[in-house]
Amino acid sequence: MIGLSPGQLDPAAENPLYRQLYEQIRSAIKMGSVRNGDRLPATRELAVELGLNRTTVSAAYALLEEEGLIRGEVGRGSFVQYEGEFTTAPVTSTISFASSRPAEDHFPIEEFRSTCQEVIQSAQVGTILQLGSPSGYGPLRHHLLEQARAEGSAGPEDDILITSGCQQALDILQRAFIGPADAVQLEDPVYHGLKNVFSRVGARLLGIPVRESGMDLDQLARTIESEHPRMIVVTPEFQNPTGATLPLEHRERLARLVEAAGVLLVENCIYRELRYEGEQIRTLKSLAPGTLQIGSFSKVAFPGLRVGWVIGPRALIARLTETKQWCDLHSDQLSQAILLRFAESGRLEQHLRRVRTMGAARLHTALDACSRYLPAGTRFSRPQGGMSLWVRLPEPLDANELLPRVQRERVDYLPGKHFSISHFDAGSLRLSFGGLSPEQIESGLATLGRVINEEGKRLRSAISFDAAPAMV
Amino acid sequence: MIGLSPGQLDPAAENPLYRQLYEQIRSAIKMGSVRNGDRLPATRELAVELGLNRTTVSAAYALLEEEGLIRGEVGRGSFVQYEGEFTTAPVTSTISFASSRPAEDHFPIEEFRSTCQEVIQSAQVGTILQLGSPSGYGPLRHHLLEQARAEGSAGPEDDILITSGCQQALDILQRAFIGPADAVQLEDPVYHGLKNVFSRVGARLLGIPVRESGMDLDQLARTIESEHPRMIVVTPEFQNPTGATLPLEHRERLARLVEAAGVLLVENCIYRELRYEGEQIRTLKSLAPGTLQIGSFSKVAFPGLRVGWVIGPRALIARLTETKQWCDLHSDQLSQAILLRFAESGRLEQHLRRVRTMGAARLHTALDACSRYLPAGTRFSRPQGGMSLWVRLPEPLDANELLPRVQRERVDYLPGKHFSISHFDAGSLRLSFGGLSPEQIESGLATLGRVINEEGKRLRSAISFDAAPAMV
Repeated sequence: MIGLSPGQLDPAAENPLYRQLYEQIRSAIKMGSVRNGDRLPATRELAVELGLNRTTVSAAYALLEEEGLIRGEVGRGSFVQYEGEFTTAPVTSTISFASSRPAEDHFPIEEFRSTCQEVIQSAQVGTILQLGSPSGYGPLRHHLLEQARAEGSAGPEDDILITSGCQQALDILQRAFIGPADAVQLEDPVYHGLKNVFSRVGARLLGIPVRESGMDLDQLARTIESEHPRMIVVTPEFQNPTGATLPLEHRERLARLVEAAGVLLVENCIYRELRYEGEQIRTLKSLAPGTLQIGSFSKVAFPGLRVGWVIGPRALIARLTETKQWCDLHSDQLSQAILLRFAESGRLEQHLRRVRTMGAARLHTALDACSRYLPAGTRFSRPQGGMSLWVRLPEPLDANELLPRVQRERVDYLPGKHFSISHFDAGSLRLSFGGLSPEQIESGLATLGRVINEEGKRLRSAISFDAAPAMV
Repeated sequence: MIGLSPGQLDPAAENPLYRQLYEQIRSAIKMGSVRNGDRLPATRELAVELGLNRTTVSAAYALLEEEGLIRGEVGRGSFVQYEGEFTTAPVTSTISFASSRPAEDHFPIEEFRSTCQEVIQSAQVGTILQLGSPSGYGPLRHHLLEQARAEGSAGPEDDILITSGCQQALDILQRAFIGPADAVQLEDPVYHGLKNVFSRVGARLLGIPVRESGMDLDQLARTIESEHPRMIVVTPEFQNPTGATLPLEHRERLARLVEAAGVLLVENCIYRELRYEGEQIRTLKSLAPGTLQIGSFSKVAFPGLRVGWVIGPRALIARLTETKQWCDLHSDQLSQAILLRFAESGRLEQHLRRVRTMGAARLHTALDACSRYLPAGTRFSRPQGGMSLWVRLPEPLDANELLPRVQRERVDYLPGKHFSISHFDAGSLRLSFGGLSPEQIESGLATLGRVINEEGKRLRSAISFDAAPAMV
């Protein structure tokens, strides 16, 4: 009735789930999808359906009740209470720059259906449904390894392991190679899902500051000397959250550094195919053959199908495969076969061309809108691809303190604290534009710019007031 | 050309992969699928295709060359060399009792195709392809929780987490609850994939002997007193490898024991639906509500689709869900949606009826053949369902030493050592009949019986000879 599905809520977003749910139901009421007198599902029922805790649903209902949009009747449930005008567009819903995922409305559903058809009608279906190999579905491994060879990223001594997405690739790398005593060098700021994989095992995280041109290699070199890390994880293109890309000469220096020090280098390539302008740069793997390279279909095709991979030297892949076996035996084979077919049929490349065209439009809108709406003193990164850019608010604004004010205006982002390892900048925040339309990007940034302006003025006047004590 | 697929090789089987591959290619040659003069794929190429190490393929080729079935030509590759008669049936292939997985030739492929069709044509496809929730696909969670409630296995305070099969459920349970200092009580013998999950983290494994009626509860009670375990994992029905089932009164006692001691009880229900005779017994979860219950579609539907789950008290599931998120974000959503549809459409129940009918025929054939062919002094379990039974060879036979002799006769099994924790019985072995036809079961057991007989005689005569030293 409220027409909600679990996919519309994002557990990884900063905007808490109860608030996302509140906003969705509020929008359904204002748009007339549910009407005055309609009964909402019981909290327990909705919780199960959406994969939420019951307290999350109760909190959302409490907000709606507070706003007078629903009323609870003891023993009977919660009822909609709204006799106002209906809006036709969900104009009141939040423009969320908080989630780095592709836009659902541009999924190539028909191409997916055709691909799926071809796979399930094929003679391989029996094999796909049977228990598989921990290494992954053979034909997909073959395809990906050939592709990496053609690109010069894999050599004859390399092998491949299929994982359940990039997140599992990182998790298995930690489990196979990193214990509590080990040091790991990560970009700082960095994607929180990457940080958590290593921090929860008690590894020593060494944050290397990210500049416009990626990791600060001087600091990296000093930290290699002093801390003897076991592993370095780098996202060389359109890094999450900064959008930074490592130039070729930095890659060459990084390759020399890791080879001289014998550190394990992990190259996370999940955004590599999302380049909207400029030339593709050689992979770290092609410069340092001992590198373990991570890829995934999630950012370029369908995030709901969990298929990623690691390519690297045979002996290292053998160790990862052993670990993988006791994690979950092997990854889902139907999705592996479908994504292989999607790639081999040329549909992936065709889809990628569309994704890049749309991505370019979003990126340019975002950069233009940043220039136009964000007040002087605000700095922002200028990525050539990916899904996110990094903003630094003018002093003395704090991105975390600003957030509730921005959310009241129905715009959302992730403050820098979620990504920080040791070089925390309170004025930083991530804007993810990948899942929004150009109109939403434009409108969201106009609002953000206005709020930054107002709050900046308010804070500066408060400060100057504080700065003038009475001369008694 | 050789027509091999990764699904035909079983990495978990005792028969090593190189030997399985050798047997498959040998069979292809003898059946004329590849002919005299045909070139075999290069070892590297075949390794990638099948998800194997190159050394595995080289070892298989070496065996074939030794047997004179292929010849290697330097710089040109390996060529088939066989001008003998062709057999029409793969009579020379091994009858493997080593793998506990369903028979591929009975997969309901057409029903799977229809289910898949319905899912991909539905309006939910966009949601399915988008990033999902760590908890799992909402409608599937709802369905499984309702089912568990209807069966009395879940109460109002329970919640559910979808995992990538039962293996991941066990892995996440370990990661959330068991550290190196913790003691875990496991059945002894037990499935090696379960043992490995806990042993690799350095947990103290306490093996509780399994009798015909499951875990020895007297010993369990004593060990709870003396060792203060944190967790007990029990497979109450058709336990792998013994086939043992815990009777109701034992379940009641176990429930009282864990509740009094405050130990976390994990009930592994993956074989529960595979009961071929006798009455279904109440679950442990229904007797001890704090239990965490594991289920999976792998044994009853399609092992290649990785969907399992854990049902338990809300607070424990919340902790598992947090762990799951950093393992792989969430499980594959397409397979979740397909298996939900498979269940809701009634096709799963229909398929299960067939599986039970076929399973009963296999089980009865296996038990009859054991009675007829295995020599006096051999003991075997008499399960009422599942896929495996447990054999104890007459003294002084050793199941591990007997294996190469049995494999030469093209029969395979897993010796007891793979399942043992601390109560190792060298004469024990597992026979998995789930993937074999009644004819194969009959023929395999006839061979096994003959070899046991011959080896037993040989050993006994050797012993009596040793027992009569010269009186010089």
